[in-house]
Amino acid sequence: MSIAAELRARITPPNALVALRTQRKLDLKTKPRRSLGRLEDLACQYAAISGSESPELPRKAIVVMGADHGVAARGVSAYPQEVTAQMLLNFAAGGAAINVLARHADARVIVLDMGVLEPLTVDGIESARLGPGTADFTQAPALTEQQLTAALTTGSQLARRLRAEGVTVVGLGEMGIGNTTSASALTAALTGSAVEEVTGLGTGIDEAARARKVALIREALALHQPSANDPLRTLACLGGFEIAGLAGLVLGAAAERMAVVLDGFIASVAALCAVRIAPEAQGYLVPSHRSVEAGHRIVLRELGAVPMFDFEMRLGEGSGAALAMGVLDAAVKVLLEMATFEAAGVTDSGR
Amino acid sequence: MSIAAELRARITPPNALVALRTQRKLDLKTKPRRSLGRLEDLACQYAAISGSESPELPRKAIVVMGADHGVAARGVSAYPQEVTAQMLLNFAAGGAAINVLARHADARVIVLDMGVLEPLTVDGIESARLGPGTADFTQAPALTEQQLTAALTTGSQLARRLRAEGVTVVGLGEMGIGNTTSASALTAALTGSAVEEVTGLGTGIDEAARARKVALIREALALHQPSANDPLRTLACLGGFEIAGLAGLVLGAAAERMAVVLDGFIASVAALCAVRIAPEAQGYLVPSHRSVEAGHRIVLRELGAVPMFDFEMRLGEGSGAALAMGVLDAAVKVLLEMATFEAAGVTDSGR
Repeated sequence: MSIAAELRARITPPNALVALRTQRKLDLKTKPRRSLGRLEDLACQYAAISGSESPELPRKAIVVMGADHGVAARGVSAYPQEVTAQMLLNFAAGGAAINVLARHADARVIVLDMGVLEPLTVDGIESARLGPGTADFTQAPALTEQQLTAALTTGSQLARRLRAEGVTVVGLGEMGIGNTTSASALTAALTGSAVEEVTGLGTGIDEAARARKVALIREALALHQPSANDPLRTLACLGGFEIAGLAGLVLGAAAERMAVVLDGFIASVAALCAVRIAPEAQGYLVPSHRSVEAGHRIVLRELGAVPMFDFEMRLGEGSGAALAMGVLDAAVKVLLEMATFEAAGVTDSGR
Repeated sequence: MSIAAELRARITPPNALVALRTQRKLDLKTKPRRSLGRLEDLACQYAAISGSESPELPRKAIVVMGADHGVAARGVSAYPQEVTAQMLLNFAAGGAAINVLARHADARVIVLDMGVLEPLTVDGIESARLGPGTADFTQAPALTEQQLTAALTTGSQLARRLRAEGVTVVGLGEMGIGNTTSASALTAALTGSAVEEVTGLGTGIDEAARARKVALIREALALHQPSANDPLRTLACLGGFEIAGLAGLVLGAAAERMAVVLDGFIASVAALCAVRIAPEAQGYLVPSHRSVEAGHRIVLRELGAVPMFDFEMRLGEGSGAALAMGVLDAAVKVLLEMATFEAAGVTDSGR
């Protein structure tokens, strides 16, 4: 059985009965019914994922997968390719935005080299290299079949390891110069959206560079003729080692009944790939923000994910996931720590 | 000089030059320029309020003022009036939503009895009573002139005390059965909006009760003929001891150069009263959420405050302020803790 089929077979939806029981438990707390709105939904979702209306407090890890992209050589980014590796080193040293935001959220940061141009051998970066960046997807599939299998395996095995270590919530983070190009191509292929509708300014290119990006994506789609009905082949053709690795992480996390916190455009595309491979993974996804990247809105809609906030962010790295984890924690604490009407001696209107 | 005039004279806007210098400092951090969007705005605002582009980390307090409302006897709430006092006792015991959310945000909770029906004498509730609830504003001004002065004084002196204790951020919280009726009346009077447009379902009344609420507010407006140009008299007529107290807190906090985090409809109306009294207080306001309460959108627009999130909350107590404080903390940590391109050895595209 393929790794994808194996993971699909292990995934069942979160426990809907526990969600209902959790809402009933929240209804006894000293507040008007449903007056904490989406916080209550989050608490119910987390309880349903955990399988208990008295779940343990979230234990959090943000997984940042980094990789280079063959298509980056075609000039689709404002930054040179070596920035991917430089930023992984920055993550390992603790100086990047995700380090700051993850510390604030009390989340571990796990950094994986999924295949940057040159191998990195420093403490704090796990090597899961699939090659020195993907192939240029305008010329060939970004990933070989073997690379795709390895990426999905890496992600899902990491989920299993984290669960064994007690983690209950994983956040999706990524770094890869050129990876909005890959994400836009995947979005167009998986949703049928027009390329120009899902192609944005990435880390800050100008309109001329965006036009080049659109043209390259069109070239790639014409070459591979990807089908929305074949998410595995589509993912291999349009790639991203880190996107495939995160898709594997989502599938593995759903199989292990962990909550998965989305991040920006690229991480959300990885989740979309996962959900197309195994639709029952959807219930494990916790939205975070809506980024300024053009295609993000479309991907979130496809995922049925209503973002928690829109701070006009466009950084990736798991930065939005870290912020959302703070909200998820708050929601679970409401469930676990608030007094009931009865215990507090407060009159309940029943509303 | 009146307390209002005295406070107005002490308030100057946050330091715009510091805001600019803070943005320049953020632009050296290892991320594309402005890629953290509103987090960067928040960091700049907090720095400008603090007067330094290297501000100290926020030290936070949420002030929950509770009071009863004469108009509540007319049946405008889903809950009986004694719930105000019961909930203050719940705050003091630590079992309410605000206790849970404030602990999560690492914020102190300060509970003030501004005038509930019966005096409360338990540890954890400070007495600042102005009477056993306001007068029914359909019959008389809710507050006397003396009560208004006392409320503004209580709030502004509390701000001074908290600043002396090292607090740099205050969140606005309130509890008062009937107080959305007061807040809706104040919104109509201060913004000129139609009463039915700014009158919602409070803690969960039905449409018949809402119609009664609208009629009572119309009665009160006809009786007092409040003017948007006289915010002090309007505040006295349409009241809320806790709303006037929070307005004083906002003014005092702005005078002490502390950030003020908004909460839902009632707290935002208190901030609107403060800004109408002293327009330069506006720069000290940090938005939090948009609640489901009908008038909140209008009040936020009047304040020029774009909410951070909309979780369909309608609880008050400072619950939204607590969540927003977590985001503010994150923003300040980005400013203080992230590495620069130079220090991290990352190539800067200058974008």
